[in-house]
Amino acid sequence: MSERSRIDLLRTQLAQGALAVGVRVGIGDDAAVLDPDLVWTVDASVEGTHFDARWLSWEDVGWRSFMAASSDLAAMGAEPLAALSSLVLAPSFDDAALAALARGQAAASRAVGAPVVGGNLARGTETSITTSLLGRAAEPVLRSGARPGDGVWLAGAVGLAAAGLGLLMQDARVQDARFAECLAAWRRPVALIAQGRALRGVAHAAIDVSDGLAHDAAQIAEASGVSLFLDTRALQAIASAALVAAAERLGRDALDLALAGGEDYALLATSPAPLEGFTRIGTVEPYREARVLLLGDEGTKPHDPRGFDHFA
Amino acid sequence: MSERSRIDLLRTQLAQGALAVGVRVGIGDDAAVLDPDLVWTVDASVEGTHFDARWLSWEDVGWRSFMAASSDLAAMGAEPLAALSSLVLAPSFDDAALAALARGQAAASRAVGAPVVGGNLARGTETSITTSLLGRAAEPVLRSGARPGDGVWLAGAVGLAAAGLGLLMQDARVQDARFAECLAAWRRPVALIAQGRALRGVAHAAIDVSDGLAHDAAQIAEASGVSLFLDTRALQAIASAALVAAAERLGRDALDLALAGGEDYALLATSPAPLEGFTRIGTVEPYREARVLLLGDEGTKPHDPRGFDHFA
Repeated sequence: MSERSRIDLLRTQLAQGALAVGVRVGIGDDAAVLDPDLVWTVDASVEGTHFDARWLSWEDVGWRSFMAASSDLAAMGAEPLAALSSLVLAPSFDDAALAALARGQAAASRAVGAPVVGGNLARGTETSITTSLLGRAAEPVLRSGARPGDGVWLAGAVGLAAAGLGLLMQDARVQDARFAECLAAWRRPVALIAQGRALRGVAHAAIDVSDGLAHDAAQIAEASGVSLFLDTRALQAIASAALVAAAERLGRDALDLALAGGEDYALLATSPAPLEGFTRIGTVEPYREARVLLLGDEGTKPHDPRGFDHFA
Repeated sequence: MSERSRIDLLRTQLAQGALAVGVRVGIGDDAAVLDPDLVWTVDASVEGTHFDARWLSWEDVGWRSFMAASSDLAAMGAEPLAALSSLVLAPSFDDAALAALARGQAAASRAVGAPVVGGNLARGTETSITTSLLGRAAEPVLRSGARPGDGVWLAGAVGLAAAGLGLLMQDARVQDARFAECLAAWRRPVALIAQGRALRGVAHAAIDVSDGLAHDAAQIAEASGVSLFLDTRALQAIASAALVAAAERLGRDALDLALAGGEDYALLATSPAPLEGFTRIGTVEPYREARVLLLGDEGTKPHDPRGFDHFA
């Protein structure tokens, strides 16, 4: 069963008939929305699934897990308020590791402006960090508001984190300065809270790019009942030298990395007007042929969005 | 390092100097309190640590994990608003198991009045369920407010769940009707939301009994700088026939099970006046000799609180 089917199963099973009083948005967006203006999300980082301690320090793991959760708030245009941290710790996880993990969480928490106000500690066979963030947004930006005629806008880099992970998988000690940007993107992603603010009152839809640009573009398209046309020339124009160099080393296409690579925590939005800090990379059209279509020198073709699916 | 030392390490590492604006209570109570009146908690149930699928159906696991988190809100005198559910699923966890787990969560969520509004799905080597609950309380009841002269009050049974677990560990197929109450207490605990309401505006301190009555009484005593005197005759008077029968089968003392057994999710409070739905089991005194003292036929003796410590 795919991740999607499993989420559908949960949504059906957990549906309370109509949404309960005070619940404006339930399962299915970047975060839930509660009256009057609360935005609420949770994200888990599991050793072996989301990270490998050979390639990251525990401080990186703490930072990264916190930022991944924060990014959901950025995508709603929300202001982070506070966080809870629930840790499952493997027997081998020692006190130095715990201190390092907490340092990374604390640094990310300061960067985002959301103090850790509580949590839970438990023992398990593998280490995982589950972070819940609460934020505030008077007009949260959902996935479902994209309209034909909107521009498609991107803030932050895409593909760099996947390139960094690919390089580390080739050589856990990679040090080449040309790749520093890729490694930093994977180890120390930054939730784009300020760019999220720029969405407010302007953008029609937004999502954070955690599973790959094409995959997350398809999420907006499906939730909004439209097609997103992505301009490959615009994406190539913003590809950094580090992405191009890493793609070459990895024997991959830079555009493919940009479209499929996840965990950069870039923001993808649709908007009728320019968004500060964003670059235009496409157009929203009425639904036609596929959720995501690529526009290139040779015309337009449907794109099969293959992002990262934990259950595929 | 004990669980307590680890929590202290995290508290130090994650402290943001003074509490951030809007944070009334941070790490260390049953739940965090945010302005204006939000109460927020998280709890994890990890396979192998908190439950064993041989002794519980997945529906039980879903119910139980949801109730454990809800119980923290009950202990604050809070009204549950909504929940997030973050699941880490082992490869062997199939779709029937997922449907059963979600059914249990949904049933508990309806019983508590807190719809599941979102969550996260991830793969791991062992299954865990992390539930975050948000509630509202105009005057949340903390652990730190106990005052000498207060009565010590208990709602719900203590020791039954530990007895149920002990019986299942002896014989996973135990069916004896005399023990049904113990098995139900362990498999289907109920968060005492209504009794939590009775705390409001009356009780000075409260905690939910998740780690054992004596252990959690010591938490109140320490947070409040007092001693809690527990009357063993009062505890014996409320011990059910099922607890006594189970203690006999397990070769344990019923009073010891009542004092040390966790996961009943009873509520323990201190209050200058009677609390509806609670029974008086002791008195708060100025600090003397130990955090918890037992009052019995032979006088008073300090009690060494040995609750369940995941890291002991």
